[in-house]
Formats: sequence, structure tokens, C-alpha cells
Amino acid sequence: MKARPGPTTRVRIRELAGSGVRDRRDDLATEEPLEIRLIGAGGTRKTVAITMRTPGHDFELAAGFLCGEGLAGPEDIAAIAYCADEDLPPEARYNTVTVRLHGPVPDLPALDRHFLTSSACGVCGAAGLDALHDRCKPIPGGLLRLTPEVLYGLPGTLREAQGVFGKTGGLHAAGLFSATGTLLALREDVGRHNAVDKLVGWAALAERLPLAEHVLMVSGRASYEIMQKALAAGIPAVCAVSAPSSLAVDLAREFGMTLVGFLRGERCNVYAGQERVTV
Amino acid sequence: MKARPGPTTRVRIRELAGSGVRDRRDDLATEEPLEIRLIGAGGTRKTVAITMRTPGHDFELAAGFLCGEGLAGPEDIAAIAYCADEDLPPEARYNTVTVRLHGPVPDLPALDRHFLTSSACGVCGAAGLDALHDRCKPIPGGLLRLTPEVLYGLPGTLREAQGVFGKTGGLHAAGLFSATGTLLALREDVGRHNAVDKLVGWAALAERLPLAEHVLMVSGRASYEIMQKALAAGIPAVCAVSAPSSLAVDLAREFGMTLVGFLRGERCNVYAGQERVTV
Repeated sequence: MKARPGPTTRVRIRELAGSGVRDRRDDLATEEPLEIRLIGAGGTRKTVAITMRTPGHDFELAAGFLCGEGLAGPEDIAAIAYCADEDLPPEARYNTVTVRLHGPVPDLPALDRHFLTSSACGVCGAAGLDALHDRCKPIPGGLLRLTPEVLYGLPGTLREAQGVFGKTGGLHAAGLFSATGTLLALREDVGRHNAVDKLVGWAALAERLPLAEHVLMVSGRASYEIMQKALAAGIPAVCAVSAPSSLAVDLAREFGMTLVGFLRGERCNVYAGQERVTV
Repeated sequence: MKARPGPTTRVRIRELAGSGVRDRRDDLATEEPLEIRLIGAGGTRKTVAITMRTPGHDFELAAGFLCGEGLAGPEDIAAIAYCADEDLPPEARYNTVTVRLHGPVPDLPALDRHFLTSSACGVCGAAGLDALHDRCKPIPGGLLRLTPEVLYGLPGTLREAQGVFGKTGGLHAAGLFSATGTLLALREDVGRHNAVDKLVGWAALAERLPLAEHVLMVSGRASYEIMQKALAAGIPAVCAVSAPSSLAVDLAREFGMTLVGFLRGERCNVYAGQERVTV
């Protein structure tokens, strides 16, 4: 086993095409668990998540997860490191990130609740949106305006920038764009929520939150979870190549966000926040 | 709010195409939380999961989740019902499923562990596979053999059967096929793990487990989580339209499963268990 897994893994496969058969090598997106541990000022330790992720940008993933779940903002974080516990086997050290906080570890009930819900907020979507108001404010109207031309250009820019890992065909991408369509950062992962966490974590650690004038573009669908993470980062507009869910649209409308789906070629659907799309 | 959410939700949207604009109605895949609660023989209650899902086949989802996570098999389940707690608002009752067990609720440490890991098994993929041996046996060689022609036909059959909800473009599909390519059951969901849980739950409640001579076909990618659920149901072969992850391939090889990816048109890649594919 490698001491530190990379983002891709090479394996031998058998390719079938019509009646033909060929044995060859292929690159896969690496999937490995990442454990995120908090250490409070008093030394209290608590595991807050174990997520299946593609190795790389792990500190950003941890910071973005904590931010998105409302557990800790960048100002709460004193240090982030891989786990150096000597009782961990070497190959597991790069699968555990410890986040040292300036203050105490947040209350356990809150943590348990976040676990339980996997980013859902109760047993009813509407109640979940109500609960989200406790920790997230609606996004102000702001200055961000998007032209159709800028929107139509986002998927192509995202896909081109995906080149490095794109060869595996197995990664979700999340890109952060300016209002004029310039790609500022791109992150990829086998888990689409992780790709967004990495992106938000990048912004958090660079002290760029809230991302008030930015657009988040995701390569797949827009779910409640993706919208919640964007909201926590203050992102006013989310674009997706595929469909949004009903609760993603509800959240966008409730919190003043723009949500664009089926963004392909020269077309798209605007599901919420049409005032930011100039036509 | 509707008392009982359906699988699709109608909303008004704005469609942009080139420089054109059109306001119209659109159908979205409904996304609502589902809480799964266990009630033990002694009356003990425990929430074991809250997952974001598309309403429909909720009892199957609960049964399949419990089976896939190794918490309860069909023989352990006495009854499944929507929650009738009077302190729940009416719209939340169809978002909570209670599963009454013949025996006690499984140990809390085990439950917590399943939570924590969201189907991962520790902080290292290889260690996770080791841990999985504690509750899942490798799949025997068996009689299942698949021809390339049968494989090439699966995606089309799945897509045609997806007609009902497919209009939203926002649902993952999981189909269970015979060795000759006959579709036995299809389930759809905003969460691809839920689609597989519903399918396995259908088989569990129909007393059809283990699915020793069957093929699972999923519309998206094959992750560790999908393979783990298939393994728990005894399914020897998994096919995916898109890429598998590294850990999905590791799991398949470790447990004697066949894994086919990029199954599109007249081609595919066989990542594991080539002996079941006749060429």
C-alpha cells in the first residue's frame, strides 16, 4: 500500500468494444476515507466526520466542511494538520486531518445533529429551511449580474480546466467564477459535496469569505446540500449542468439565491433569483 | 404544504435559449428528508438515519438501508409503518418510517459507527475492506455468466423504463436484471445510494435475498458505497454507466464481484470479476 494515496490510481482492466477484447491499464479516481477531527483549546478531541473523498486539498476540505456545517469559521481555526498519532498506521495518517480551534469544541448535541442529518435539517424540508435561518442569513440583492453569454461560457471553461483528473471520467467538479466568467478556483472529488467543501475551504483559508460577487458552477446536479454549502459561504448564484431538486429550488428562493440548471450549450433554466440574470 | 409529497414537484421557471426567454412550468425531482427509526422488542426507539430522498418506496428504502448497513435483515423486521406520533406535524409523518424489530435495537456503538462513517469503514480504504469481512462474505463464483450483448443492452432498457420520473432529468436510477438482461425492478431517487437501497429493500421484503444470479445496473458512477450495498445483498455483478472509483474496484476484487464501468453503446470496461463475462 502506498503511504500517501494520490488523486488517481492505475489498474489493469479489460475493455470490450463490440466483439473485440483488449486488456490495458486505466486510471481511476482514488476514493479513500478522510476523518476530520477537532481539537478544542482545552485539548478535547472529537471526530466530526468521516467522508469518502479523493485525496488532495484535504485541509481545504476540512475547513470548508466546518464552514458549511456551521461548526467553525476561518476565524475559529488555529491550525490544520494531518494526524501524527503514532498509533495510526502510516497509510492512515494522510486520511486523518486534525483542526485545532482557538476555542472549545462545539457542543456535542449540535455535532450529533449534523451527523444525523447529513446536512438535512429535520424530518420536513420546510422545517429544515426554517432551522437553516438560525445560522444563515438570506443573501442580499447585491451587485452581481450575469448575462446569458457569461452563463453559456461557464461549462466549457470548467470542463477545460478539469483536464488533469478529467481523464478518469470519475470526478465531480466545482468551480468558482467571477461575474464576468473568469475561473478563480476549481476542485474535484468523487463526492460532489466534497468538491464544494474544498472550494469553500480554499476561500475560507484565503480569507475570501463571504464570496458575495461570485458564481459557483457544479458539474452535476444541484441538491439541497450543495445549496446549503453555497449559502453558508455567501455565494449568491449557483449553476449546475444537470437538474436541481425541489428542495434546492425552495432553499434558493427562501434565501435570495440565484439557481440555474441544465446549463448546456446556449441554453439553461433559471429556477430562482431571475433578477440577477440580465436578459 | 402538501400533506404527502410526491416524486415530482411542479414549479415556474425561466428558460433561456440563445437570446430568447420563455417563462414556463417545469417538473423537478422532489427532495425531502426521510428519518428511519428502529423500535426494538422492548420498546426502545432509535433514529438510525436521516437521508435526503425522493418520496416513494420509503418502506423499501428503510429495509434496504438496514440490510445494506448490516443493522437488520428481512428476518429481523416485524413491521414497517409511517410514523403516527401525534406530536409530528402532518406533513412530516410521511417523512418518518418506523421499523419494528423482533429483537432488540442493535448496539448503539455499532449504530454510531455506521453514522460516523456514512458507509465508510475507518480511516483507510484497505482497513475498511478488512472490517467489511466481519459482516459480509465474499460472493461465490456461482452460475452467473454475462455475454457482451446482454451487457450492451442494459443501459437502454434502464433508460426506457425510467420514463415516469425521467422527465425531471434529476434522478439516479438503479435496476435489477436477470442474467439474460430482463429488468426485474427499477428504483429512482435524487440520491444514488437511496435508489440502490430501495431496490435491495424491494428484494428483501419480497424474500428474494441473496440476489445470487442477478446484475445491478446504476445510471451514474460506482462508488465504494454502491458496491458495499450490492455485496450485502449478495449481488455478484454491478454495471455502471460512468466510472468506478479506486475503492469500488478494490472492494469488487476483494469480494469476488464483477464490476463493469463506462457501459455505453457497444462498449464497456470490466474492472473486476472478468470470469463472469464471456468473450
